[in-house]
Amino acid sequence: MASLRAAAHLRPFAARASLPRFQRSYGAAAAVNTAELPSEAPFFTGEPAAPVVKTAIPGPESKKAIDELDTVFDTRSLNMLADYTKSFGNYIHDPDGNALLDVYAQIASIPVGYNNPALLKAAASPQMASAIINRPALGNFPSHDWASILETGILKVAPKGLDQVFTAMAGSDANETAYKAAFMYRRQQERGGAHVEFTEQELTSSMVNQAPGAAQLSILSFKSGFHGRLFGSLSTTRSKPIHKLDIPAFDWPQATFPMLKYPLEDHVEENARAEAEALADVERLITTHHLPPCAVVVEPIQSEGGDNHASPAFFRGLRALTKKHNVLMIVDEVQTGVGATGKFWAHDHWNLETPPDMVTFSKKAQTAGYYFGNPALRPNKPYRQFNTWMGDPARALLFRAIIQEIERLDLVNNTANVGEYLYAGIEDLAKRFPGEFMNLRGKGQGTFLAFDSPRRDEFLKKAKTFGVNIGGSGERAVRLRPMLIFQKHHADILLDTMEKIAKS
Amino acid sequence: MASLRAAAHLRPFAARASLPRFQRSYGAAAAVNTAELPSEAPFFTGEPAAPVVKTAIPGPESKKAIDELDTVFDTRSLNMLADYTKSFGNYIHDPDGNALLDVYAQIASIPVGYNNPALLKAAASPQMASAIINRPALGNFPSHDWASILETGILKVAPKGLDQVFTAMAGSDANETAYKAAFMYRRQQERGGAHVEFTEQELTSSMVNQAPGAAQLSILSFKSGFHGRLFGSLSTTRSKPIHKLDIPAFDWPQATFPMLKYPLEDHVEENARAEAEALADVERLITTHHLPPCAVVVEPIQSEGGDNHASPAFFRGLRALTKKHNVLMIVDEVQTGVGATGKFWAHDHWNLETPPDMVTFSKKAQTAGYYFGNPALRPNKPYRQFNTWMGDPARALLFRAIIQEIERLDLVNNTANVGEYLYAGIEDLAKRFPGEFMNLRGKGQGTFLAFDSPRRDEFLKKAKTFGVNIGGSGERAVRLRPMLIFQKHHADILLDTMEKIAKS
Repeated sequence: MASLRAAAHLRPFAARASLPRFQRSYGAAAAVNTAELPSEAPFFTGEPAAPVVKTAIPGPESKKAIDELDTVFDTRSLNMLADYTKSFGNYIHDPDGNALLDVYAQIASIPVGYNNPALLKAAASPQMASAIINRPALGNFPSHDWASILETGILKVAPKGLDQVFTAMAGSDANETAYKAAFMYRRQQERGGAHVEFTEQELTSSMVNQAPGAAQLSILSFKSGFHGRLFGSLSTTRSKPIHKLDIPAFDWPQATFPMLKYPLEDHVEENARAEAEALADVERLITTHHLPPCAVVVEPIQSEGGDNHASPAFFRGLRALTKKHNVLMIVDEVQTGVGATGKFWAHDHWNLETPPDMVTFSKKAQTAGYYFGNPALRPNKPYRQFNTWMGDPARALLFRAIIQEIERLDLVNNTANVGEYLYAGIEDLAKRFPGEFMNLRGKGQGTFLAFDSPRRDEFLKKAKTFGVNIGGSGERAVRLRPMLIFQKHHADILLDTMEKIAKS
Repeated sequence: MASLRAAAHLRPFAARASLPRFQRSYGAAAAVNTAELPSEAPFFTGEPAAPVVKTAIPGPESKKAIDELDTVFDTRSLNMLADYTKSFGNYIHDPDGNALLDVYAQIASIPVGYNNPALLKAAASPQMASAIINRPALGNFPSHDWASILETGILKVAPKGLDQVFTAMAGSDANETAYKAAFMYRRQQERGGAHVEFTEQELTSSMVNQAPGAAQLSILSFKSGFHGRLFGSLSTTRSKPIHKLDIPAFDWPQATFPMLKYPLEDHVEENARAEAEALADVERLITTHHLPPCAVVVEPIQSEGGDNHASPAFFRGLRALTKKHNVLMIVDEVQTGVGATGKFWAHDHWNLETPPDMVTFSKKAQTAGYYFGNPALRPNKPYRQFNTWMGDPARALLFRAIIQEIERLDLVNNTANVGEYLYAGIEDLAKRFPGEFMNLRGKGQGTFLAFDSPRRDEFLKKAKTFGVNIGGSGERAVRLRPMLIFQKHHADILLDTMEKIAKS
C-alpha cells in the first residue's frame, strides 16, 4: 500500500481510465444515476480499493502513541490516531496499518483528499515556503501580491453580491469579527453616520466596558445553532451544554429554529407552520429584546446541533425580516461552504433577492474570514477591525489551490451527483431498516446528509470496525461529511457498511 | 541585491568571519561591550550593508499595488507594502527597491529574520508540506507524531514548572482559551471537585446564557493592558478606545497599573509606592468586585499600551496575592515571549517562587497557545476545551525550527548583549537630546526597549525616510522590537538614524 501511494504522490493524477472497483445499485431509488456508473473513473489512483482493518482501533501502535501523547496533551476527545504520511484521498490511515474510508474528514474540513497531489505541489512551492516563513502583519505590511492572492483565490469564489473580505484564522474568529463589524455598523447608524465623531463619554466608558462606549446590543442566534467557542461566538452557540458550561456569556437572545419533521412530503403544513412560528419568534426578539439585535447569525444547515434543515422559503423570510428591521444577516457557512451541499455556498440554494450582509467561512477553505459587499461595513476608521496577523497568506494560497482543484475536477457537480446517489441509497436502507435510519435529511444538498439512529454512538463505533470513519452531531444524528472527491464507488462502500451495521 | 540574496538562500549560513560593517560607540555608556565589537560577525551574509532608500515610501510601484488592494481589502492601516520575496534578515524590502532595517518586525512577530535559510529548509520539508495539506482536527485525530512534535518544539521551551500545552491559533484565542480554563477550574472548585456532576439547572441555564450555567465570574486585567480583540480578550484589553468602541464587553474589573517614573534610580520610593498601590487595588477588586475574578491576566511589559514596565518585586507581589486569594495568574507573553527580553520568557526575570498558572504565547512563536502545569486545569470532561483545529501542526513545526535556530545562534544571549549595547546608546542620545528621548525604559530587558517622543508619529515617519522601520505603542512611545538576529552593527544604524531624527 505504501509503495502504491508513494508512487501516486510523484505523478499527477493518472488518466481517469480505470473502472470503479465497486458497482452496485440500491433498488429502484438508486436508478437515478446508475446509468453513469460504469463510466465513473476514480479521481485518484493509489487510493486503497477498499478499507483495510487489521486491528482493533486503536491498535497496539496507536495505543502506545496515545499514552505518550496523553502526558502532554488532553487525549480524552481523541477519536482515532492518524498517520497522515500514509493517508490518501478519501482514506485515513493509522499507525497499525488500518485504512478507513473517511466520511467525517476532520470534522468536515478536508476538501479534496489527504495528500492531494495538486495541493502537495502548491505546498511545496517557493511561494508557499515564503508565506510560511515571512508571515506578515497583514493590516500593516501586506505583501505586494496580496491583492492578487485574494483575487485569484478567496475572492474568486466570493458569494454573489459580496466582493470584499476580512480574513481570519478559524471559524470562531471569522464569526466574531463579523459580529464586531455588525456592532460598529449599527452604532454608526445610530450616531448619524461615518463622519460623526465619538463623544468623550463614549471614549471613556468604552475603556471600562460600560455603555455608551460598549454597545448595549446583541447578536440573535438560533436554538441548536453552533457558531464557535470563543466568548462572543460561544454566546451565540446553542448546541450543547458541554460547550457552554461555566463560561460567562452575553445575555443575547435565542430564537426558535423550526424543527422539521420527516419525510418532508408527509409534513408539509406542519413544517410550514413551524417555520412561520420561528420567523415570528425572530421578529418578536428583534423588536422586544432588551439588548436589540443588530444582526442575526444563521447556519444554512445547523451542523453541530444535529443537522437541522429549513426550507429556502424560511431563509428568504429571514432575509425579508432582517431587511425590514434593519438587522444584518450573517450566514455562517463555516461547515456548509465550499461545495459540500452541491453548490459552492449552501445559501446559493435559497435564491435570495438580496445577498446576505456577511458570509463567514473556514473549514474546507482551510483559511477563514467573512465576505461582505456593503462598503459601509468597513468601519469608519482604521484599526477598529484589526489584529496582528489578520489571517494567513499561506492558508490563502492553499485555498486557491483547493479552488483550482475543485474547478479542474468539477467537484461541486460531483458532490451534487454523488449526493443524489447516496441519498437514494440511504432512502432504500431506511425502507428496509426503518428503525435504524430515521429522519433522513439533506435531499438535494449534495453529500451533506444525515439521519437519526436510535443507537448512534454504537453505530459510529461499529462503522470503524467495518473500516469507515463517520461522525455524529447533536444527540442522535449520524452526519455524513465526505470530502468533495467522494465518488459513487465510495458511496457503495459506505452504503454496504451501513447495511452491515443495520443487520448487526 | 536580488542575486546576492538568492545565493544566500542556497547555502547554509556562511562562516561567521567577515567583519561588521558598522562600528561606532556611544560615549562612555557604550563602553560596556565595545571590546567585543570587532569580533562580531554577521549571522547572515547577504543582508544589505545598510538601508537603501530609493523613493518616497510608498513609491510609485507600491502606490499602484495599494490602490489595487484597496478595492478588496481595507488599506487604511497599511504602514508599508512589502516584497517578502526580496526581504532578508533584518531588512524588509518593498516593490520600489527600498530596503529598510526593520525594528518593528511585523508587530514584534518575526523572530529570526526574513527568509531565514534554516526556516526555509523546514518550510520546504516533506513534513511541512504534509502538515499544510493534511490539517487535522487535533483533538479528535492527532497525528502519530504529534507528541513528538510538541516535545521537541513547543514543550521544549515550556516555562519552568509548566509541562502541558493547549494549542491555539493566535494571541487572542490563546488568551481566551486560557480564560475558559480558569472559569472551568474555579467553578469546579466551587462545585466541590471534578467528580461532581453538573446540576440540571446548570445545564439548562447555560443554554440561555444565564447563571448558574454561565459563570458570574470575571478576569481581572490592568489599565493600559492589551490581551487581544475578540470578545473575551477585548473585555480585558484596556489600551485604547479605538480597540473597544461599540463592541459589547463583559463587566470585568480593571486594576491600576503602576506607571513608573524614569529614570528609575531617581524615583525609587515613588515607584515602590505606585506598585504597592496597584497591588492594593488588585486585592480590593479581587475581594469586592461583583463578578469575582477567577484569574488575573498580566503582561510582563505592557506592550501595546505604551511599553509600561513594573519591577520583579511587583510581579512577585502579584503572584503572592493571587495565591492568597485562590485566583489564577495568567501571564500573557504574546509579545514579550521567545527571547526578546534577553530571557526566553520575560517572566524568567522575576524569580517567582511558584510559576504562573498559565502562560500564553503567540507572535514570535509563529504558533499560539497556553502552557500550564496543574493537571486540574484540564477540564473534568472532554470536549469542554475543544475546537476543530485546536492549533496548527504546520506552525508548530515552524516554531520547532525557530527554537533550533535560537539555540544554534545563541540568540537569547545575543539579544541580551545587543540590548545592553543599544540601551547604552539610547541613554547617550537621551543625554545629548533630552527633549527627544524621554523615559527610556527596558534596561536589562534585551532589545525590548522604548522611550517617549514628544513628536512620536513624526519620529516614526522620519525614520522611514532614513531607511528604518520603527513602530509606536500607546500615545507617545517609540517601541523597539528588533528581531532576535539584531546585532550591534544593526544597532549602530538604528542609533545613527535616531540621532539624525533628533537633529532634524
